Amino acid sequence: MAIAGPSIVDITITPVAIADPPLLNSVGVHEPFALRAIIQVRTDDGIVGISEAYGDDPTLDRLRRAAAGLKGLSVWDLNGLSRRIAVALGAVAPDSPTELAGAPSVAKAIASTVSAFEVALFDAQGKATGLRVCDLLGGAVREAVPFSAYLFYKWAGHPGREPDGFGEALDPDGIVAQARALVDRYGFGSLKLKGGVFPPEEEIEAIRALHDAFPGHPLRLDPNANWTVPTSHRVAAELAGLLEYLEDPTDGIPGMAEVAAATGLPLATNMCVTTFDDVPPAVAAGAVRIVLSDHHFWGGLRASQKLAGICETFGLGLSMHSNTHLGVSLAAMTHLAAAIPNLTYACDTHSVWQVEEVIEPGAIAIRDGVAKVPDGPGLGVSLDEDAVARLHQQYLACGIRRRDDVGYMRTVHPDWTGTRPRF
Amino acid sequence: MAIAGPSIVDITITPVAIADPPLLNSVGVHEPFALRAIIQVRTDDGIVGISEAYGDDPTLDRLRRAAAGLKGLSVWDLNGLSRRIAVALGAVAPDSPTELAGAPSVAKAIASTVSAFEVALFDAQGKATGLRVCDLLGGAVREAVPFSAYLFYKWAGHPGREPDGFGEALDPDGIVAQARALVDRYGFGSLKLKGGVFPPEEEIEAIRALHDAFPGHPLRLDPNANWTVPTSHRVAAELAGLLEYLEDPTDGIPGMAEVAAATGLPLATNMCVTTFDDVPPAVAAGAVRIVLSDHHFWGGLRASQKLAGICETFGLGLSMHSNTHLGVSLAAMTHLAAAIPNLTYACDTHSVWQVEEVIEPGAIAIRDGVAKVPDGPGLGVSLDEDAVARLHQQYLACGIRRRDDVGYMRTVHPDWTGTRPRF
Repeated sequence: MAIAGPSIVDITITPVAIADPPLLNSVGVHEPFALRAIIQVRTDDGIVGISEAYGDDPTLDRLRRAAAGLKGLSVWDLNGLSRRIAVALGAVAPDSPTELAGAPSVAKAIASTVSAFEVALFDAQGKATGLRVCDLLGGAVREAVPFSAYLFYKWAGHPGREPDGFGEALDPDGIVAQARALVDRYGFGSLKLKGGVFPPEEEIEAIRALHDAFPGHPLRLDPNANWTVPTSHRVAAELAGLLEYLEDPTDGIPGMAEVAAATGLPLATNMCVTTFDDVPPAVAAGAVRIVLSDHHFWGGLRASQKLAGICETFGLGLSMHSNTHLGVSLAAMTHLAAAIPNLTYACDTHSVWQVEEVIEPGAIAIRDGVAKVPDGPGLGVSLDEDAVARLHQQYLACGIRRRDDVGYMRTVHPDWTGTRPRF
Repeated sequence: MAIAGPSIVDITITPVAIADPPLLNSVGVHEPFALRAIIQVRTDDGIVGISEAYGDDPTLDRLRRAAAGLKGLSVWDLNGLSRRIAVALGAVAPDSPTELAGAPSVAKAIASTVSAFEVALFDAQGKATGLRVCDLLGGAVREAVPFSAYLFYKWAGHPGREPDGFGEALDPDGIVAQARALVDRYGFGSLKLKGGVFPPEEEIEAIRALHDAFPGHPLRLDPNANWTVPTSHRVAAELAGLLEYLEDPTDGIPGMAEVAAATGLPLATNMCVTTFDDVPPAVAAGAVRIVLSDHHFWGGLRASQKLAGICETFGLGLSMHSNTHLGVSLAAMTHLAAAIPNLTYACDTHSVWQVEEVIEPGAIAIRDGVAKVPDGPGLGVSLDEDAVARLHQQYLACGIRRRDDVGYMRTVHPDWTGTRPRF
């Protein structure tokens, strides 16, 4: 018996480029534009489910190959979605959205493709039933999802351009000022610093300064595996008691396990555990106490719930990772976070750094440190078609086709390699 | 925002007793009647979702206490279901449906209560949307679910009563004849013998006889932890190569791990891993290679999918356990099995031993060794209200209020204790 419900008749994939400030990280610096793909899935009932994914060339290629095999699929047939995508992609090259989300893998390349469509199917399911995505995921356990302020070292503006208005942040004072601005504007209740940029002593000072300025705010530091194990030991010893968790101090499960064994500070990851294959060795080694989920590369909303169930079962904490994203993904992240009882940490989001948007305003925003779950149906957000068209033109014009933080840094510092660990 | 969709206005819980043959197991023998509860959840849209659960007194008490707190709950709010049941039950005594499904625990008592209502909510969701339960679970990956022939040592009939027509089976010849009858009638492609009844040598002979009579049929043996570790070692050595898997030879994770370490024969369990808390120690010890899920005590259909995800992630096989049940549960088991990609073993079912039924005929049956997924909507089966009323009268008359295989055996063998391990 075929599965009932609306089935797919057409899929549109629209790459967009959005202005992005020069945010520094362990491998380099954000380019002037970040790429995303907007997915629209039309059904025979006239419903359009939407989603948002990475927008780099390899992703777009996979999305287009996968889309060609999805006609006729019921929006309820999530198992069929995975099966069809595996068939459509056939042999697929290992990939990862960035060097900041773990090693490239075939599993991740397939999972990120499945996720892109699965979210759109959930949006369509919601529109077909009048339900919110969080309700389709089992019901909201919270109607407001806490997000953390994502602090970045940054230049005042992109090289050769005007300052971007976010301000320069290259030392503890700059980071505290940035945190103050974000907390004042969005009410964030916790703070995360993207580290691995400067020598650890400077970043330790930044954390101390944040602790002094925001004594009640949980703090996190994420050097994206830019430290050796000995450096990680040293920093962990300095920051024990000051951090809620330390994220990916060093590379790989064995290294993380070595650091974990020597500190009481909880270690978190979105780099050494990024596919389900990574979970058993990480559990066996005791490498991490918290996993940062990300529906974009874990395989979608249901896969993220599967990860949540594993974390709950194995006594691991669960938080949420973010890459640069727009409002469709913010809505998906919020619905997902609302439906996972054991997602007990404030989620990461790059939202505050984006000044361009593809959704109609008003549906979702961060206030008082939380995003209220959109009312729905589905994701509860609508595309601003003019904005999509404009940002697609920007995509066509910008020339960027794959994120390259290393190469962009090299335009400023010709000797830059981005090789880790640097400290 | 409240969750949309039909919400609960009324719940009916009807205990029923069904005739059960004298099936022998490690702790005793099945009584003349087995107890089940039929749950009917009525919504404000006039939809009635149905489910089937254990029917013993402690279960009924929990179901009734839980039901009192469920009015107004959306049929989509599965997280709310768990939360409300936890509140309604408050402090709950540890329980287990039988001595054959692991140690009593609070987790199992709550999980079995959640499951009873969750299945009914899924049935209601399906009726509200026109979808099958398997589609709501992510889509059927198979439209026909294989079941195994569940072979039992048994008496010709209950003491003091006429033979039941299933025949006596107390030796290898009797077991082979029973298997022949079940395979001829239902087309089963695999065979499972409930062991732990006679000295292991006799059960080894029965397995050899089955292997000779059905050389192409995968075989399983389940002595329900009635063997010591040394006995388990000995039997595993004798049966390596003859069994698809050996189920619960001995008690507890440490004992199972000891047996597993010494044999290439895969060990399966529905006794030492029966709650999510059991998974990490079992994984760490390498105690089992296959877990038998059972939505009734793992917490429902979504919880069973969570278990499936854990098994997939940790490289464990997944099969399905059965206690005595009726057609509503057979439908739920079939929808669930249809939607789990990594449920790769034929499922257990006691169906063939039940001559009484609560559902209208025709919706589900085992033929050629498989049950086709009912067409739906929801579970795709309907209650025969007359049958429910008749079996409820039988419940009132039979006097049994809690399964007691040990006590019933004692009426025949006064010295019987049911203490394990016996061999």
